[in-house]
Amino acid sequence: MQVMPRKRRPIITLTSDFGLQDHYVAAMKAVLLRHCSDAHLIDLTHQIPRHDVLCGSIMLERAVASFPPGTIHLAVVDPGVGTHRRILVVKLARQTVVCPDNGLITWAWRLHQPARAYRLEWRPRQFSQTFHGRDIMAPVAGKLAAGATITALAKPIDDPVFLDLSPASGLRGQIIYIDSFGNAVTNVLASALQGVAAVKIKGRHRVPVKRTYQDVAPGRPLALVGSSGLLEIAVCQGHAADLLKLKVGDPLILCKRS
Amino acid sequence: MQVMPRKRRPIITLTSDFGLQDHYVAAMKAVLLRHCSDAHLIDLTHQIPRHDVLCGSIMLERAVASFPPGTIHLAVVDPGVGTHRRILVVKLARQTVVCPDNGLITWAWRLHQPARAYRLEWRPRQFSQTFHGRDIMAPVAGKLAAGATITALAKPIDDPVFLDLSPASGLRGQIIYIDSFGNAVTNVLASALQGVAAVKIKGRHRVPVKRTYQDVAPGRPLALVGSSGLLEIAVCQGHAADLLKLKVGDPLILCKRS
Amino acid sequence: MQVMPRKRRPIITLTSDFGLQDHYVAAMKAVLLRHCSDAHLIDLTHQIPRHDVLCGSIMLERAVASFPPGTIHLAVVDPGVGTHRRILVVKLARQTVVCPDNGLITWAWRLHQPARAYRLEWRPRQFSQTFHGRDIMAPVAGKLAAGATITALAKPIDDPVFLDLSPASGLRGQIIYIDSFGNAVTNVLASALQGVAAVKIKGRHRVPVKRTYQDVAPGRPLALVGSSGLLEIAVCQGHAADLLKLKVGDPLILCKRS
Repeated sequence: MQVMPRKRRPIITLTSDFGLQDHYVAAMKAVLLRHCSDAHLIDLTHQIPRHDVLCGSIMLERAVASFPPGTIHLAVVDPGVGTHRRILVVKLARQTVVCPDNGLITWAWRLHQPARAYRLEWRPRQFSQTFHGRDIMAPVAGKLAAGATITALAKPIDDPVFLDLSPASGLRGQIIYIDSFGNAVTNVLASALQGVAAVKIKGRHRVPVKRTYQDVAPGRPLALVGSSGLLEIAVCQGHAADLLKLKVGDPLILCKRS
Repeated sequence: MQVMPRKRRPIITLTSDFGLQDHYVAAMKAVLLRHCSDAHLIDLTHQIPRHDVLCGSIMLERAVASFPPGTIHLAVVDPGVGTHRRILVVKLARQTVVCPDNGLITWAWRLHQPARAYRLEWRPRQFSQTFHGRDIMAPVAGKLAAGATITALAKPIDDPVFLDLSPASGLRGQIIYIDSFGNAVTNVLASALQGVAAVKIKGRHRVPVKRTYQDVAPGRPLALVGSSGLLEIAVCQGHAADLLKLKVGDPLILCKRS
Repeated sequence: MQVMPRKRRPIITLTSDFGLQDHYVAAMKAVLLRHCSDAHLIDLTHQIPRHDVLCGSIMLERAVASFPPGTIHLAVVDPGVGTHRRILVVKLARQTVVCPDNGLITWAWRLHQPARAYRLEWRPRQFSQTFHGRDIMAPVAGKLAAGATITALAKPIDDPVFLDLSPASGLRGQIIYIDSFGNAVTNVLASALQGVAAVKIKGRHRVPVKRTYQDVAPGRPLALVGSSGLLEIAVCQGHAADLLKLKVGDPLILCKRS
């Protein structure tokens, strides 16, 4: 007699700009469970600023970086809903993303090569013009979680839409996200910090690169590699964005040890 | 030898005005899992404005409309907790609702006939006077999810409490809910829109009825059938409630094509 | 043939000051599921005010009071992350808590004796200096949920850090938490209310002790035993903290029936 190993329950994450006031997130979960009754449904965040595809793109990358192989990510920041914008299925890091083709995949695509994009061909018999997250993308995520193959639903493409997100080149970068603790996440990878002693922000603040918050006095700013592998500007026991008046898009320059 | 099909895990949704700051929602989930360890617990929303039974009623209907047969809905907007108001178990759309008998069932009852109401007779040996959601309603929802029959816990009644929610009659309706995107949901069903070209709101704004947001220019208002089958007032890439200064209760008139 | 009872799925609760905007909570859940694919993950709250260990301690106690034996509680309010503060595993009420050793365990420890504390010895090969919740505590909570024994990961200690939280002694107490309904939770246990007719708050408001909200007229203040067994100051159909201008730390005196 053979003992079958118990199959791990599939994980589906949800990322959106829907907020938590309305029933929209639950409506997508109802569809996911119709297709895959056994799935773990994990909210990444639903508090992406409305229609902010860049912010959604950064959050989606963090979902991919956090979850194990086999995870399905459903990401819906979709200002073009009801138009003919394509819907993507993307395979990367042995995980699968279902999202509108509006640049939302940009950041995950950049950090998790090799990646492969597919245009969703499948459509339900009926669907609303206002909520493709529930009517088209959630069924697809649920079908994939239940074992459907991507190629039964979608066709390979080589031109997904990307945001024009200049990478940190050489000694320059910028702030791409400010989290709820006031930490400013930059597009500078840890690997670019070899020999870098400090960061100059907006041509004004010179902030030392440190290993941990406690390497500076309370209330003092520092730059450190955050939990996602990107350089962040922070303040020990404080709120960097408020203190340094930082906002998304602010430029920074890496300063080498002299 | 017969292979038993694996039973689908029961789904229990939770709707309340408890917010997410405190432990109240988790306390109900702990009780649900004590009674039905295998259940999927899905938050509909916990951000109903406190004691707003009408808003709760609309959200509860959306829960019923979204979820598959067999789902149990636990809905707690309960200003009368600790008094002798009844507790309902309602069977509709092959789903089950557990909620206080204060009108919360109104909107689901109206849209999902036939429906059958029962007055909960069961009470635990001990319970608080301040949190019947946890002490009475959650155990009942958990027991039902675990397979208990309604008639073992409750007795049929034919007089549940309803809100005085005038339906959209003839060519008149009103705004009944404003969602977090600023869309104003009305009590006008899609079926009432035959031959209707526009909607006049508060006797002032004349808004065209369209199929999708993109049928008007960015920043322009429109009326369209939302994902729940009700007419909504929206603004393409904008916030209708702010732009048109809409609020719950505002009247509207359907204007026929001339 | 022997029929094995189906094992109940383990429950892991999560309490933090991370908020819901970012991906931090989901990142911890990803780790929990890597270690224990079958777990129920229940959010207690993630809206503890940042670095407010007292508030976190009260919420953590409510988690312990609410959940059944076998539950694992992961609580992360961790201003000292990256320093050498210890990490605790605590056994109480036949449940297990994993949290930083900064006083977060205080309130649960006080109310759920006997309790036993262990210092976590286990560390992963690599971990960030900014997110021990994900990198150290979540793996431990996941391992324990999957069946690991505490003593394989941690060593008994007898000096966990406690907050200096003066208990309600004799006829005095204080407000320790204000919930989202404006109810002010005090450190007075129900058992201290024998013969108490009223509560005097801030030497000014004299509020009667009642059994339920409806024992006073709408808009009137009262004191009653809340769902967690602690005396709370409330207002019938109102917001006590606003009406009486209450805040955490306000003193109160119990007034005996004369």
